[in-house]
Amino acid sequence: MADSSQDTKPGGVLALAGGVGGAKLALGLSRVLAPEDLTVVVNTGDDEIFYGLHVSPDIDTVTYSLAGLANPETGWGFAGDTFNALETLGTLGADTWFGLGDHDLALHIRRSDMLRSGMTLSEVTLELSNRMGVRHPIVPMSDQRVSTVIESSDGEMPFQEYFVHRRSEPDVLGLRFDGVKLAKPAPVFAASIQNASAIVFCPSNPFLSVDPILAIPGTKVGIADSGVPRVIVSPIIGGQAIKGPAARIFETFANKPPSALAVAQHYAGLATHFVMDTVDEASRSEVEALGYTVLVTETLMTSEEHKIALAKAVCEMVGVPV
Amino acid sequence: MADSSQDTKPGGVLALAGGVGGAKLALGLSRVLAPEDLTVVVNTGDDEIFYGLHVSPDIDTVTYSLAGLANPETGWGFAGDTFNALETLGTLGADTWFGLGDHDLALHIRRSDMLRSGMTLSEVTLELSNRMGVRHPIVPMSDQRVSTVIESSDGEMPFQEYFVHRRSEPDVLGLRFDGVKLAKPAPVFAASIQNASAIVFCPSNPFLSVDPILAIPGTKVGIADSGVPRVIVSPIIGGQAIKGPAARIFETFANKPPSALAVAQHYAGLATHFVMDTVDEASRSEVEALGYTVLVTETLMTSEEHKIALAKAVCEMVGVPV
Repeated sequence: MADSSQDTKPGGVLALAGGVGGAKLALGLSRVLAPEDLTVVVNTGDDEIFYGLHVSPDIDTVTYSLAGLANPETGWGFAGDTFNALETLGTLGADTWFGLGDHDLALHIRRSDMLRSGMTLSEVTLELSNRMGVRHPIVPMSDQRVSTVIESSDGEMPFQEYFVHRRSEPDVLGLRFDGVKLAKPAPVFAASIQNASAIVFCPSNPFLSVDPILAIPGTKVGIADSGVPRVIVSPIIGGQAIKGPAARIFETFANKPPSALAVAQHYAGLATHFVMDTVDEASRSEVEALGYTVLVTETLMTSEEHKIALAKAVCEMVGVPV
Repeated sequence: MADSSQDTKPGGVLALAGGVGGAKLALGLSRVLAPEDLTVVVNTGDDEIFYGLHVSPDIDTVTYSLAGLANPETGWGFAGDTFNALETLGTLGADTWFGLGDHDLALHIRRSDMLRSGMTLSEVTLELSNRMGVRHPIVPMSDQRVSTVIESSDGEMPFQEYFVHRRSEPDVLGLRFDGVKLAKPAPVFAASIQNASAIVFCPSNPFLSVDPILAIPGTKVGIADSGVPRVIVSPIIGGQAIKGPAARIFETFANKPPSALAVAQHYAGLATHFVMDTVDEASRSEVEALGYTVLVTETLMTSEEHKIALAKAVCEMVGVPV
């Protein structure tokens, strides 16, 4: 995908995504764009080692979504998965609060084995997603390990400890992306920044899902200087996050009420376009005042039709033919 | 278990075991002997790495048997196990001929993680078997890696490739135990050779299950010179192996027809007592002529009662109170 032929063709859409919310729009985009016209770059700051196995929760959520294998109840995990290995892991004295299912475990086992064999996370992700039937490239933000550390009201903790074990209950006071200074964007990510005809920030947690991607040296400035339309899809609707702790993090960490406007402020200067929900229309002019071209539309993605409709609207807004 | 108090107490029974047949008698022994009166040392020559996970098939068969968790249909594997992870491993391009179930995988995941943390296989085996409710010590023959290699009519292959993938179909022409020269008996095994009041060779494949144990430097001579009763329970009944390729290996590798007598010849000079099935009574005097004290009894273990009865008979034969 990063071969020289890519330099001469239109670059397609680069989508940046975290977990469930990002995966919804990524699915929509994959339904309206051909595989060669979409690259989904996914946060790996919340990757974790469980039982010696490399788990990449956001990559897996996006992969399962695009493969049609995601649990429709949760948005993450493998549909209809069983938890027999987890039961025995508990019997054998292992922590089981990160509830890995049997099908899901197979992915982590295989990924870990391939990584140990010397493949990069990019190579492993491409092969495994292809084997699950995904034709659009899913790319980790980096092939180096970057670990999001939460500085919370209960002390420092790894991301999954905060997010899953502690159910996002501690207040987030600070964030750190360990390893990020030595990390490089994955090769296809770097090439996509150069070649994309548009960049889409999927509706993922700005602090926990997107900022780790932007913290990789060269990516934020590369995106800002790309000269192509860069569109934010607000993950905050009516002051609420659809899923996860984004709203609370705005309050405790960013010290402002969660809102579409606050999202727009967070990305000000980096993006050119902004998609907000109709319930937030009142703040349209304030968002426009930040320099954004604004689209107000229905952004709640409760069905595949909604995901496709929003993906179409986003593409049309930035001149990408669908 | 290897503390100094052990030097002053009677040593109990040291049982040497491979897979399913060995596990049957080990279960019987565990029902008639207290945990401090029995140590089961298990072949690890057929350990293998699958998907980067350390699988110890014989240890697991013995452990599941003593824990009451073994699949009663096969004698190995976890009763009622599911194969969901295996299905996905296949989708993801992994070989799946070694049919690991979900509960079973959990054991290999946990074992591998504990080994990577620096624990020895002895320590891991003790902890995991205890967590499964086993109170009798199960001990790997060595904490070092020893790999049984089959020199077959189809070339060299690792044990599991021969035994599971190729269903023991190639003729065994030679055997090699890679790594054995640098291996040491596991500490509890070494102590048991010193302290045992009797040594029982469970009815396991002499070539594939017991010889690897005896190939570890110091063990064979230690057992031969132990001065305690050493009893062979024949794995060949009426010229047949109950399970596995032992009978064929006698023909192709040892160049003699499989029989209780051939088993007795195989161990001649090493053991003092021999248990053979009633169907083989005709060769009793020939076995006695090799220097063995012989017990002829029912040795087919098709129920827990049979396992217990044979264990009692073996113990009584060598003066171990039950």
